[in-house]
Amino acid sequence: MSPEIIEVKYALDTFYFLISGVLVMWMAAGFAMLEAGLVRAKNTTEILTKNVALFAIACTMYLLMGYTIMYGGSEGGILPDAWFGNAIANATAEEVLASNGDTYYSGASDFFFQVVFVATAMSIVSGAVAERMKLWAFLAFAVVMTGFIYPMQGMWKWGGGFLDAAGFQDFAGSGVVHMCGAAAALAGVLLLGPRKGKYTADGRINAIPGANMPLAAIGMFILWMGWFGFNGGSELKVSDIGEANAVADVFVNTNAAACGGLIAALIVAHLVFGKADLTMAVNGALAGLVAITAEPLNWGGIGATVIGAVGGVIVVFAVITMDKMKIDDPVGAISVHGVVGIWGLLAVCLSGNEDATLIGQLTGIGVIFVWTFVTSLIVWAIIKATMGIRVGEQEEYEGVDMSECGIEAYPEFAGSGK
Amino acid sequence: MSPEIIEVKYALDTFYFLISGVLVMWMAAGFAMLEAGLVRAKNTTEILTKNVALFAIACTMYLLMGYTIMYGGSEGGILPDAWFGNAIANATAEEVLASNGDTYYSGASDFFFQVVFVATAMSIVSGAVAERMKLWAFLAFAVVMTGFIYPMQGMWKWGGGFLDAAGFQDFAGSGVVHMCGAAAALAGVLLLGPRKGKYTADGRINAIPGANMPLAAIGMFILWMGWFGFNGGSELKVSDIGEANAVADVFVNTNAAACGGLIAALIVAHLVFGKADLTMAVNGALAGLVAITAEPLNWGGIGATVIGAVGGVIVVFAVITMDKMKIDDPVGAISVHGVVGIWGLLAVCLSGNEDATLIGQLTGIGVIFVWTFVTSLIVWAIIKATMGIRVGEQEEYEGVDMSECGIEAYPEFAGSGK
Amino acid sequence: MSPEIIEVKYALDTFYFLISGVLVMWMAAGFAMLEAGLVRAKNTTEILTKNVALFAIACTMYLLMGYTIMYGGSEGGILPDAWFGNAIANATAEEVLASNGDTYYSGASDFFFQVVFVATAMSIVSGAVAERMKLWAFLAFAVVMTGFIYPMQGMWKWGGGFLDAAGFQDFAGSGVVHMCGAAAALAGVLLLGPRKGKYTADGRINAIPGANMPLAAIGMFILWMGWFGFNGGSELKVSDIGEANAVADVFVNTNAAACGGLIAALIVAHLVFGKADLTMAVNGALAGLVAITAEPLNWGGIGATVIGAVGGVIVVFAVITMDKMKIDDPVGAISVHGVVGIWGLLAVCLSGNEDATLIGQLTGIGVIFVWTFVTSLIVWAIIKATMGIRVGEQEEYEGVDMSECGIEAYPEFAGSGK
Repeated sequence: MSPEIIEVKYALDTFYFLISGVLVMWMAAGFAMLEAGLVRAKNTTEILTKNVALFAIACTMYLLMGYTIMYGGSEGGILPDAWFGNAIANATAEEVLASNGDTYYSGASDFFFQVVFVATAMSIVSGAVAERMKLWAFLAFAVVMTGFIYPMQGMWKWGGGFLDAAGFQDFAGSGVVHMCGAAAALAGVLLLGPRKGKYTADGRINAIPGANMPLAAIGMFILWMGWFGFNGGSELKVSDIGEANAVADVFVNTNAAACGGLIAALIVAHLVFGKADLTMAVNGALAGLVAITAEPLNWGGIGATVIGAVGGVIVVFAVITMDKMKIDDPVGAISVHGVVGIWGLLAVCLSGNEDATLIGQLTGIGVIFVWTFVTSLIVWAIIKATMGIRVGEQEEYEGVDMSECGIEAYPEFAGSGK
Repeated sequence: MSPEIIEVKYALDTFYFLISGVLVMWMAAGFAMLEAGLVRAKNTTEILTKNVALFAIACTMYLLMGYTIMYGGSEGGILPDAWFGNAIANATAEEVLASNGDTYYSGASDFFFQVVFVATAMSIVSGAVAERMKLWAFLAFAVVMTGFIYPMQGMWKWGGGFLDAAGFQDFAGSGVVHMCGAAAALAGVLLLGPRKGKYTADGRINAIPGANMPLAAIGMFILWMGWFGFNGGSELKVSDIGEANAVADVFVNTNAAACGGLIAALIVAHLVFGKADLTMAVNGALAGLVAITAEPLNWGGIGATVIGAVGGVIVVFAVITMDKMKIDDPVGAISVHGVVGIWGLLAVCLSGNEDATLIGQLTGIGVIFVWTFVTSLIVWAIIKATMGIRVGEQEEYEGVDMSECGIEAYPEFAGSGK
Repeated sequence: MSPEIIEVKYALDTFYFLISGVLVMWMAAGFAMLEAGLVRAKNTTEILTKNVALFAIACTMYLLMGYTIMYGGSEGGILPDAWFGNAIANATAEEVLASNGDTYYSGASDFFFQVVFVATAMSIVSGAVAERMKLWAFLAFAVVMTGFIYPMQGMWKWGGGFLDAAGFQDFAGSGVVHMCGAAAALAGVLLLGPRKGKYTADGRINAIPGANMPLAAIGMFILWMGWFGFNGGSELKVSDIGEANAVADVFVNTNAAACGGLIAALIVAHLVFGKADLTMAVNGALAGLVAITAEPLNWGGIGATVIGAVGGVIVVFAVITMDKMKIDDPVGAISVHGVVGIWGLLAVCLSGNEDATLIGQLTGIGVIFVWTFVTSLIVWAIIKATMGIRVGEQEEYEGVDMSECGIEAYPEFAGSGK
């Protein structure tokens, strides 16, 4: 390639990366709104505070050490080459030109794209532990999760570590991001226990309605929009014909899977509950998105719709099953990101992706789940033993907004939410 | 052009198309929030469910058949060459290079951009029939509208059919998208009748205030933002100097028209009602956007401001007139997208667009309106005769959220909305 | 460069400018939601109306005269060469090619990027004067601010005027946009006085809680997202390797500073108030963003985090100090954009930017503040003397929504907000 072409392609790929990263950053707002809509009014300020703070913590910890760990590993390895200090570095123009197009985007743009992914993984956790976990305990976990737990397993796959060498396929992170977040959430939920009044002694399951459905809906739309950056940017390159076609296919399939998931969940929920359940439709769309994330490329539009639709069906039954197992997840995050994340990883084998094998996918699922679940359980347990993870009964009854944040979310509206 | 330049231009144009499509997809959230803000609390979950579901249905139906119909017609024709199965296809690198730049973006990116347009058209309908239409009846209509009615008239103009041959000018869809949606909405509203209590026997018109003004405002901002993709992407190409200039002009004019519409509607509403009516300001901005959509290119900024301002004036009087005619449109969708859509199409003749003629524009307006209105009326009538289109009186009184969705939008807040 | 490369770079830079502009436009929604969340329910429709109307007025006035003033000045000058009529002009393909890359983006895209900046400056004002200022008085000020006051000082720096010649450094507008908006707000607040009941005769300061915390949170996320366009677009070029690297660095640093500000403010607020105060976290993030805006390039990620964190600490104490001085700013806009804006401008001297001098920065701070404050004070005073700037006591007590807009924001929810 001529130097001038290398230069303009480098600029285009960098810009594509940055815009994709902005869309993924925006997903933080989506999780915040989704969760704020699905909790009760008295716990809304606190879940918002967790969401804004976890994003800041995730980015800062990933800057300090996570990025070094995740992309500083040796090929096929288990431990990173370094724990701290792998600076964000842009190649100079001379280096880029000398690489003849092998270095095709800015190192800083790569960091930016990666840093918003770790925030996504952490956002998954906050919903599952909502309405009863101490704010600072949650943030303490966020420090370890985003600085260490997530980057380690990320290194194993995307950093070229042993999972990558084992043939595990995960395009944009059904496993590395979504199931990882869900596994950390599950560990927390098990130690934390359900919300008071959710499961009664005589075996009944009480529905606890969310306070604000428009927030849940805009949260879904934001996540859907952001997912075009999440999956679309994960192609990593757009600047030649084949790559541009691939990115476009990813956009089409990502959208189709979300649609399939939404329609399937809405219909199944109608058959099961007799109502067009908006929260199931929302979770169905997100399930479709999670399902396609492991392989958004090797499908036609109809295939992607089907993969998403299966995700939408799964999520309805997963939510029901979680409740039967008394695993209290106020927003359904473990079902959406964990159960459906596994479906997405297995579905890669159906996609015609020639590098995918069932054993490779199962290896990835097992390793990521066990690693994240066990380390998270240890960290949650340490936090529980030291600062405690659950608010007091009185605080839970009155809502954590006042006890943790000192600010009511809707001081003029809220009525009987207690 | 050198192959390398063809390649990078193809990548840039594809990326521009995809980002434009993301912005248009985002408009679905805008309609959802706008409508959720302008209905009463008791009908909010249901309108949200309609909005998320219609988007998924629209994309799926357009994938299954709409795209084939719309872009599979013969030049100047009336019927499509095929009804199903026109696959989304990307040209290979060899084909692109062989085309010497004639094929300048990915076929999948074209599909993605088109598919979000049909969702926009369908979103227009949901607002007009809000607070009284059965959810599944609405979704049944959405299937036909997005799979058949919209694509047929779209084929006639953008698919190169007989309206295009007749010289009808519609840059980004004041007619093909906005008036089309409004015509379908009007047909539904006429069969459906007004909300209980809106028009009293003694001729009074009762204002029914929306439950949540911040949602209406963010809905407007989302739509405004999305419109840069809607109009800006409709230039279809950005990768040379002339096209880049054109896209930039479209951005400037789109913004200017929205501003003109907002200011004009705010002032006129103040003169008419004595108050700075936020809902009129919002509808004024949207009217400005609809007005400029048929021709956002051939204006300077001040001209575009004026075109938008006229749209803003029209919309205030259109809303008043609809109410006088007892056409109950809770969000003003028919006025904004239909009446002002016609204004936008006629205004093309004032723009200096040399291809525009009054007869051509009137032909387009007449054909799109009659086609969409008549077919919609038939479909609505069939749905009415079979599954029914209107909820029961008791359900309407109590709000459709509980009867249709089983979920209150604001279970802890809502007071006297019934 | 070859003509073909000039062409595709021109297209890429124009597209980058337009997308950056869309992100900045989106900040208008961020301010609207932030302010709507932080005022009481009874004043929400009115603050939304101000926010949507100021955006439209800002764009229209800047089109009519502001752009001419700001970019029509002579080098090192004080007065513009013209007050009106500097048309938005795109260079032709021939002119661009003849310039050999010196003209590297569309003139219309430049206008679009600039026009959304003036709206940002004006958005800062609306929050500070919330809950007591007459709507039309505010809009009258907006006309002068966006058509004259802002463009004049903008010309002195970005139009190549005497502040630029004096070596004043302000990359994306910590001073030209943020401190300018804050100075205009301060002048208004001083003439307007505090809200009734905010400061009691016996010296107590009453907290007046905002009505809707989720809106404040989404407002923050929107502003954060938009800031990538604000700072990222201010590099003005992306199409070669060095520029692409610079834009990517700006994205990384902008994000890092916001994170630093958020974490610092959350911790400081916890130390000071004993609670994890969401509104302080939000203002901390915005403070971080304002702080880095004057120089988002010459830092590594950790340096940017620190600059933002200092901003986050400052904003907590600035908010407390404003209240002690009985300067009533319901959303903390003067602290965030003014006090921290000054910090950002001074911090340029620490960044290694070799063009920055303390004297140059102090000159810029002094000139922009004095100019904006004095002219604003005069304009506010004239408006006060003619149409009045403050609503009546009864209207303030009952809320300005009904008196100014005739529409309640939450007619079915609001309880005791009066």
